[in-house]
Amino acid sequence: MALNSATAIAHPNIAFIKYWGNSDDGLRLPVNSSISMNLDGLSAKTSVEWDDDLTADEFTLNNEIQSGDSLHRVSRHLDVLRGRLGRQSKAKVASENNFPTGAGIASSAAAFAALTAAGVAAAGKILSERELSTIARLGSGSAARSIPAGFVEWYAADSHEDSYAQSLFPPDHWNLVDVVAVINKGHKAVGSSAGHPSAQSSPLQNARVAGAEERVTRVRGAIQERNFNELATFVELDSNLMHAVMMTSQPPLFYWEPASLKIMSLIREWRAEGLNVCYTLDAGANVHCICVRSDAPIVSSRLNSLSEVLTTLSANVGGGAHVLP
Amino acid sequence: MALNSATAIAHPNIAFIKYWGNSDDGLRLPVNSSISMNLDGLSAKTSVEWDDDLTADEFTLNNEIQSGDSLHRVSRHLDVLRGRLGRQSKAKVASENNFPTGAGIASSAAAFAALTAAGVAAAGKILSERELSTIARLGSGSAARSIPAGFVEWYAADSHEDSYAQSLFPPDHWNLVDVVAVINKGHKAVGSSAGHPSAQSSPLQNARVAGAEERVTRVRGAIQERNFNELATFVELDSNLMHAVMMTSQPPLFYWEPASLKIMSLIREWRAEGLNVCYTLDAGANVHCICVRSDAPIVSSRLNSLSEVLTTLSANVGGGAHVLP
Repeated sequence: MALNSATAIAHPNIAFIKYWGNSDDGLRLPVNSSISMNLDGLSAKTSVEWDDDLTADEFTLNNEIQSGDSLHRVSRHLDVLRGRLGRQSKAKVASENNFPTGAGIASSAAAFAALTAAGVAAAGKILSERELSTIARLGSGSAARSIPAGFVEWYAADSHEDSYAQSLFPPDHWNLVDVVAVINKGHKAVGSSAGHPSAQSSPLQNARVAGAEERVTRVRGAIQERNFNELATFVELDSNLMHAVMMTSQPPLFYWEPASLKIMSLIREWRAEGLNVCYTLDAGANVHCICVRSDAPIVSSRLNSLSEVLTTLSANVGGGAHVLP
Repeated sequence: MALNSATAIAHPNIAFIKYWGNSDDGLRLPVNSSISMNLDGLSAKTSVEWDDDLTADEFTLNNEIQSGDSLHRVSRHLDVLRGRLGRQSKAKVASENNFPTGAGIASSAAAFAALTAAGVAAAGKILSERELSTIARLGSGSAARSIPAGFVEWYAADSHEDSYAQSLFPPDHWNLVDVVAVINKGHKAVGSSAGHPSAQSSPLQNARVAGAEERVTRVRGAIQERNFNELATFVELDSNLMHAVMMTSQPPLFYWEPASLKIMSLIREWRAEGLNVCYTLDAGANVHCICVRSDAPIVSSRLNSLSEVLTTLSANVGGGAHVLP
């Protein structure tokens, strides 16, 4: 590796208790705490090289040179890093995702977690995991959760310093698998960053937020005790609550597609039959089917037999963001 | 007609502002006021004959002799009528619907409105429309709205006498059409009567109810001014709010099917293209597409071209419950 450069890998995460709506859009301070698991196998790999000779930041994503909004968002995050690291130089950023971008798998979470970790390492600095998490949050809220390992809680707070994520349990605490039913590889109509400010326009958002801490407590406890039925009840409820808010915002945001609804219904049936599986959907149409590892093959096989499912991706519980040697 | 007998016709209605949840389940006092239009062409036709020689009530629906829950519910409503009319005799009830039962078209609303009107007339009594509406409400909440004509408001209230529906505008006030996309003729999994008590188990119900009077005011005004865009905004929002409550109840109630979601999305697209059409769904999968009469043929034609649509039913604004001469 060249001097002033580093490469980091981070995983996307799937939220069991969702993040939707900010108390401060600029700082991406969430209105409620959330819980997620990192997704092993799926990853963003990002290299940053600080270069005094550059006159502007450069960004390639999956080997395509980026411009416009995509470049601008990365450049703004590099500004944050420059401020924290005391650097003036511009940077070359190269990132690769091994999973479809913008289709309900939180690509921006992995991207900004990896960008943060790589940018800091490339400057030769070591920051605490907590601070890395807060910085990643400024790029994409849920990126805060892709910094620590395993099962993660991200704290709602009134200040930048206090809204960070930390690991609740390591990846090997519970053998859960996220089998993602991919039904739409297209870029979603409204990205999360654009959606968050609309949350408060739903008459249901305050009620969703009011119960979030209770749901966080229940899900944290369910993970601790490896109680799948308890987990399933609150994970599905929380997903439904977030989409209820989205669909009743003005204008309404519908991320569910007909196939999403069909799969949600099947998942409930399969659980009633005895499979340990539940669903959750982020701001996209793909259905994340959370299951115990022993049930993952049958869940995956059944999903792949559906004509609406383009493919499935299976991910174990993943580690945290890390810099490559 | 034999002495002590009468036949009445009543139309189902489609709610623009929904009824979901009671402040008193026994009296079916709703937690919020609602607004609907009656559906001309679709009807329940019910004959009641009070007969001193009968030892038990008899009920045939679409020429099939009923027993069990179906008979029991009619018999309980006959008890209410006997109490009000001061009669002891049992009754023969024969009812016919000209539309599919229990699939998101409020068959029970038309049925209990017609039963009430026929039962009272068969006893030779004349009651006020207001009182007929309160009595019909005891059989099926939304039946209160099928007594008056045209566009109707049903008032939430703390007492039996005060929770009745009345006409806001006659049928010819505005040429709206409900084009019902029938995607499922089967009986729904959970009927409305069983669903109402679950409303309060959703963390979103209080928020839905808190905004209902405002939405009633907006929809009443939109009908008065024949302002379709305003109507569409609040009709779709209110439908989404009710289904949000249903889907977040414990256990969750999902009435939407994949085809429902697909049609909802299409309706929003068609409106964006300039058609005056919006959607609303009751406790069932069928999609009620409310449109102005000039757009009804194209809406109907487009819906019928969808493979998921079994058939469409088109209804103009209907009159109130009435006794046949």
